[in-house]
Amino acid sequence: MHVIAYRRDDFLERAVTNPEELRGILDDWSVVWVNIDGLGDIGLIQQIGEIFRLHRLALEDVVNQHQRSKMEQYGDQHFIVTHMVEWSDGHLESEQLSMFLGENFVLTFQEREGWDCLEPVRERIRKRVGLLRDSAVDYLMYALLDAVVDHYFPLLERYGERLEELEDKIVQHPDQSLIGEIHDVKRELLNLRRVIWPQREMINSLVRDPIPLITAETRIHLRDCYDHSIRIIDLVETYRELSSDLMDLYLSSLSQRMNEIMKVLAVISTIFMPLTFIAGIYGMNFEYMPEIKWKSGYFASLGVMAVVALALLVFFRRKGWLGGSSAERSSFRSPTPSTEEHRVD
Amino acid sequence: MHVIAYRRDDFLERAVTNPEELRGILDDWSVVWVNIDGLGDIGLIQQIGEIFRLHRLALEDVVNQHQRSKMEQYGDQHFIVTHMVEWSDGHLESEQLSMFLGENFVLTFQEREGWDCLEPVRERIRKRVGLLRDSAVDYLMYALLDAVVDHYFPLLERYGERLEELEDKIVQHPDQSLIGEIHDVKRELLNLRRVIWPQREMINSLVRDPIPLITAETRIHLRDCYDHSIRIIDLVETYRELSSDLMDLYLSSLSQRMNEIMKVLAVISTIFMPLTFIAGIYGMNFEYMPEIKWKSGYFASLGVMAVVALALLVFFRRKGWLGGSSAERSSFRSPTPSTEEHRVD
Amino acid sequence: MHVIAYRRDDFLERAVTNPEELRGILDDWSVVWVNIDGLGDIGLIQQIGEIFRLHRLALEDVVNQHQRSKMEQYGDQHFIVTHMVEWSDGHLESEQLSMFLGENFVLTFQEREGWDCLEPVRERIRKRVGLLRDSAVDYLMYALLDAVVDHYFPLLERYGERLEELEDKIVQHPDQSLIGEIHDVKRELLNLRRVIWPQREMINSLVRDPIPLITAETRIHLRDCYDHSIRIIDLVETYRELSSDLMDLYLSSLSQRMNEIMKVLAVISTIFMPLTFIAGIYGMNFEYMPEIKWKSGYFASLGVMAVVALALLVFFRRKGWLGGSSAERSSFRSPTPSTEEHRVD
Amino acid sequence: MHVIAYRRDDFLERAVTNPEELRGILDDWSVVWVNIDGLGDIGLIQQIGEIFRLHRLALEDVVNQHQRSKMEQYGDQHFIVTHMVEWSDGHLESEQLSMFLGENFVLTFQEREGWDCLEPVRERIRKRVGLLRDSAVDYLMYALLDAVVDHYFPLLERYGERLEELEDKIVQHPDQSLIGEIHDVKRELLNLRRVIWPQREMINSLVRDPIPLITAETRIHLRDCYDHSIRIIDLVETYRELSSDLMDLYLSSLSQRMNEIMKVLAVISTIFMPLTFIAGIYGMNFEYMPEIKWKSGYFASLGVMAVVALALLVFFRRKGWLGGSSAERSSFRSPTPSTEEHRVD
Amino acid sequence: MHVIAYRRDDFLERAVTNPEELRGILDDWSVVWVNIDGLGDIGLIQQIGEIFRLHRLALEDVVNQHQRSKMEQYGDQHFIVTHMVEWSDGHLESEQLSMFLGENFVLTFQEREGWDCLEPVRERIRKRVGLLRDSAVDYLMYALLDAVVDHYFPLLERYGERLEELEDKIVQHPDQSLIGEIHDVKRELLNLRRVIWPQREMINSLVRDPIPLITAETRIHLRDCYDHSIRIIDLVETYRELSSDLMDLYLSSLSQRMNEIMKVLAVISTIFMPLTFIAGIYGMNFEYMPEIKWKSGYFASLGVMAVVALALLVFFRRKGWLGGSSAERSSFRSPTPSTEEHRVD
Repeated sequence: MHVIAYRRDDFLERAVTNPEELRGILDDWSVVWVNIDGLGDIGLIQQIGEIFRLHRLALEDVVNQHQRSKMEQYGDQHFIVTHMVEWSDGHLESEQLSMFLGENFVLTFQEREGWDCLEPVRERIRKRVGLLRDSAVDYLMYALLDAVVDHYFPLLERYGERLEELEDKIVQHPDQSLIGEIHDVKRELLNLRRVIWPQREMINSLVRDPIPLITAETRIHLRDCYDHSIRIIDLVETYRELSSDLMDLYLSSLSQRMNEIMKVLAVISTIFMPLTFIAGIYGMNFEYMPEIKWKSGYFASLGVMAVVALALLVFFRRKGWLGGSSAERSSFRSPTPSTEEHRVD
Repeated sequence: MHVIAYRRDDFLERAVTNPEELRGILDDWSVVWVNIDGLGDIGLIQQIGEIFRLHRLALEDVVNQHQRSKMEQYGDQHFIVTHMVEWSDGHLESEQLSMFLGENFVLTFQEREGWDCLEPVRERIRKRVGLLRDSAVDYLMYALLDAVVDHYFPLLERYGERLEELEDKIVQHPDQSLIGEIHDVKRELLNLRRVIWPQREMINSLVRDPIPLITAETRIHLRDCYDHSIRIIDLVETYRELSSDLMDLYLSSLSQRMNEIMKVLAVISTIFMPLTFIAGIYGMNFEYMPEIKWKSGYFASLGVMAVVALALLVFFRRKGWLGGSSAERSSFRSPTPSTEEHRVD
Repeated sequence: MHVIAYRRDDFLERAVTNPEELRGILDDWSVVWVNIDGLGDIGLIQQIGEIFRLHRLALEDVVNQHQRSKMEQYGDQHFIVTHMVEWSDGHLESEQLSMFLGENFVLTFQEREGWDCLEPVRERIRKRVGLLRDSAVDYLMYALLDAVVDHYFPLLERYGERLEELEDKIVQHPDQSLIGEIHDVKRELLNLRRVIWPQREMINSLVRDPIPLITAETRIHLRDCYDHSIRIIDLVETYRELSSDLMDLYLSSLSQRMNEIMKVLAVISTIFMPLTFIAGIYGMNFEYMPEIKWKSGYFASLGVMAVVALALLVFFRRKGWLGGSSAERSSFRSPTPSTEEHRVD
Repeated sequence: MHVIAYRRDDFLERAVTNPEELRGILDDWSVVWVNIDGLGDIGLIQQIGEIFRLHRLALEDVVNQHQRSKMEQYGDQHFIVTHMVEWSDGHLESEQLSMFLGENFVLTFQEREGWDCLEPVRERIRKRVGLLRDSAVDYLMYALLDAVVDHYFPLLERYGERLEELEDKIVQHPDQSLIGEIHDVKRELLNLRRVIWPQREMINSLVRDPIPLITAETRIHLRDCYDHSIRIIDLVETYRELSSDLMDLYLSSLSQRMNEIMKVLAVISTIFMPLTFIAGIYGMNFEYMPEIKWKSGYFASLGVMAVVALALLVFFRRKGWLGGSSAERSSFRSPTPSTEEHRVD
Repeated sequence: MHVIAYRRDDFLERAVTNPEELRGILDDWSVVWVNIDGLGDIGLIQQIGEIFRLHRLALEDVVNQHQRSKMEQYGDQHFIVTHMVEWSDGHLESEQLSMFLGENFVLTFQEREGWDCLEPVRERIRKRVGLLRDSAVDYLMYALLDAVVDHYFPLLERYGERLEELEDKIVQHPDQSLIGEIHDVKRELLNLRRVIWPQREMINSLVRDPIPLITAETRIHLRDCYDHSIRIIDLVETYRELSSDLMDLYLSSLSQRMNEIMKVLAVISTIFMPLTFIAGIYGMNFEYMPEIKWKSGYFASLGVMAVVALALLVFFRRKGWLGGSSAERSSFRSPTPSTEEHRVD
């Protein structure tokens, strides 16, 4: 349990183990942010629930991860569920961040410790950067949401890179493992999509609903955060369409390869079958075969074979079945949407 | 016919065969829950309909299973149709649960007996766990709906497992029976979808519509239940998309196998056709064939054949047509959405 | 022209040829239902139009079949277009039923005579079954609509059976005629869909719009009818998705068969090409070929061939290219949505 | 420039070259319809714009063809853009019809002259058929729109016929040119769709928006016209789905043909490869080959070959690889939606 | 930094380097348009922000390119983000144009200099063409938006041409590089779509929202601009569908080619295998083979071979496997939507 409390001219940061200590801090400071890492200790969570008078159903949602993002009002408190994402072991993982917004406190619950996308907010409180120290508890909530949302962009960018890599590989060596990777990317984007659509709705209801705790100025900032959440959705949908297109690209590559294999087979068969047939004719044991006696019969037959082979080669070249596999497609790169974000603070 | 009646400090549970007994119980207790198993006896159902003054159309919907989930108001009573699911014989079966909500009673009708997803509610009434015994009839209705809805999660999880199994099989041995299984999963999910979309609407109308019987506190709980029904829809839609992707995966596996078969065929033909042709040449019976007389002619011809075969093998290796089928795709697992649900009661 | 007129305690049924007779009947009875079969005689229809003061545009819609289902208000009359379906010659045909609802009359126009889905309504009037004889003209309109809508269910069930049959056939013998049948089913469902979506809207507007002629009780019944129309849409959409899936199933069956054909070809070629090559070697006519002189040369060469053939067979068995076509897929049946409807009258 | 002016008991029709003449006509007649063919003379159009006080932006839209259908209000005038279609050179062409509705005039602008779908309206004015001569300017506008909209039906019917023809051809001879034709139909329907969706919206806004110029009676007629525009959309969407299905049908036909080609190849190879191999064995030159000396060796070997060939033929017949291509699909016709329109005037 | 200031009878145009000079200009002129090229100098942008009292969040959006198009109100100022497109290096690039609308100024920020789609607006100010010089600042904003939007049309037209070219190539030589090009076009259209949908919403909110700065007359012009933005969307969606269809066309071309290759292979194999088999028979070394001794045996066998070959050729011709590849599809062109725009100024 990690507590940060501040007012315009002072701030306090410390770890707390006994929830009862929080009561004192709540009375003394104008803005208190309590962050709880790890949801294993249900007794502790219930104790906190009593101190802050949290609703039982909201606490259930805190403990049961895998909620959809949402904003719910319980009396004069607001309960917000959102999802942080982090890249881990080659794929994107999401984790639920549960937030309670009270008159002078924000409570955040998260499962794992190492996720640091909220660290920049702490830093800004400590160093008095931006408006955080001068604002009320609603701006803190905005800052946390904004940190969560903006953290999606660099991670999404990796999908862009991954899709480009996949495209290169498909063009060069379409093999079965690629289809598995495309399938994985599609599944991850599908899961991501399930996470971000409700997030957008949640932020939208923060912007539009008449919530007394949220000031007009914070609302403008939330509108900005809402814009970002729409851009995330745009990106994910774009990537989803691109990965579907990659599937088509893969299948057409397979068909193309198949065509080339069949061409080789057809060319070889078509050339050697007539030749072998000619050889077969002169391998027959008939007693009376005039050509057999000719002195130049052997060379004449070889000559006929050569002519047949050449004629067929010319025919295939005309048909375009010989020659390069035309798969050189030098460079087909186009810029995928960039996602960097600069800050004018 | 099974009756549970309770008030804060007492409760009654017994089986009833004569509907007329219900009149007395209705007068004596503040909350009465009558559960009727089996819909075969239409006379009985009409008798119950008269005792509780149920509308004829609603009774028709009780008897005609396969209604969509819905909430309808008949005078001061509310008629609710929902669907319970149960895993049976390797696939999911749904059953209609019809519910009447009156001033102090809940009436539930179901077809089959063995379906026990309502048993936990009975247990909580008996043992006085949670708020049930302290609340009015609307909370009982919520508790029943919640039990029905939460029962979907563990069953849906099985689809997740089944899809993962199918994926593994497709990657390893794509055969025709798998397409049948995917088709089955898609059909079951399609049916499931028909069931759950109206369920969501029904719960939503319970949350939003101004129904005097439902208190504000129960409404908050119903909102939670509504969240769960949306998550069920999310899951089913996700599984549907995954099963469509599996179809693509299957087809691409087939194409890939075809490519490999064709490669084998092309390699074999391309190697043996020229060799057989060479052998055919020296099988010709021309009288004047100089090589025939050479002492080393036989071995020279074998040498030429070996050189041709080797050259072709090198060519195919360069083209990448020889070598492993590259289907090893070591491990491509990614976590499907989990659906466990913990309770903080 | 067939007229049924009734009040609570009496009823009249007869065929009328001269429209002028209708004026008298209209004045005498509280509910009059005039049914006109066949739309060929435009003069007659205009005459009826004058007697009942029908709007010219509505009459045009009566004569021009292929209208969308709709409900339109002309003064104090209501004009309703709906569609009856009937199975004929192996496919579903729809026919427009135009209905006028006036203060004490219902006028129905239909093209063909033999369509009897309204017959049960007549029977109920004659035998005084249900509420018909005790109700006003709005209930008659409901009863007619309900008869039309409920008639869809048994017919739709046939599509379910047809799709199951097609599935069985595809799995067993995928041939070109099946694709034609799937295509037919899809086209018929597509046409059906065009018919039923507006029907739902029409019934909905009957339920919701403030129409003085329709009593609250009838509205409850219409709501039931609306539910049925939604279930019809659900069924049709489900069948449409199933038939699309059948297309995929068919294509994958084709690919699977192709794979099997190719396997046979590849196995045969791979086994006999080396053997023929070996035979070709010893068919060469070189003067000096040591093996030729060996006494056991012939049998040794046969032995080598047998070894090569066996080795290749083992190789193919390992690769899984030999053996059953694995198409036995014992039984993959799952229950399609049933559509029976019982009545608690 | 062609002018028709009328009142109940009189009418005037003549060609006008000097726009100034229009001022007089406008003052004298209760309804004036000016039709301008050809948009090349911008000076003339500006002159007309001044006489009728048309807005500059509306005039721009007149000159720039390819506007979407729309209805816009400029002061007390209404500017309507719609699209006429005509079959030309084997495909459907659309042309913009711009219409201004003023207090007592309708102005129509069209590019090409020969398009006669408005001719029936002129005829009805001249011959005093229907309500046109007895109504105000709004009914004229309706009559023009109705003529434009109803002209779509016979043209759309041709697509239905074309799709049926294509289907027949695909089933009989799937070749590459058909895919081009399907592609063309899809493109034309795509373009058509871009034209008709806004048209529907435009007519809907004429029906719903409170426009003083339009009387209640005309509104009823416009509602009818709106119904027709929805039916056009229905038809186009249906045709679009049918043409997508044709694409699937074509691809499956190709696969089917491929399967048949491969079967022929496999059957031939499988039969002749073993036979050739047997012949090859007895073509070997080993000195000690017992069968060679046998008197009946030759005929025995031929017998063995015949037995092998027969056995293989039986095997293939069992497998169903021999026999008709089963493409006879006798007759699979189903009625496409008809689009005739009768008029009860 | 480039400044244009004007009133009805005068105008000023000059480059400014010190932002403080702007204060004077702002006071003196009724409409001031400041255009800033290049966003590298954040200090300068903050200085401008102070002079014009711009909101910090809006400035952030100016600096962070890749915003979605939007219109946001900050106090009495409006912040508009839109996107200009330009063809560069063979594909379409978009650039963000940020615009501030104040009481008497318009501020535009753009990254790159060379983009001249705003040049025509400057020209119209300088030459006093159109209404610009006589109107207030809202008309200037409209003129800029209109210039941006109309610049899309000629660029989109190039996609139409590119798609037609691709189609021609696919029909003539379907090779792998084409699929890459289709993929590129789809990706670019996908990106374009992400840009234009929000643009439409933004313009719509300018038309509908009650913004005091925008007069009724300008609103009419904006409505026109809104129409154009819808047409752009229509075009992009149409091109997207066309490019998807091209993918299908490509795949079907591949299948068709494959079919032709297989036909060649099957024909060759089927003709030469029986011939080679016959030759093989008479190559056998049996001592007693009556035909061998015949004088005409050799020619008889050649005759049999010729007959077999001819019979097979006739058979294949009947089956339609010989003959042209039927890919001549003479001309299948249909007009793609044109996008020219004339101006009646």
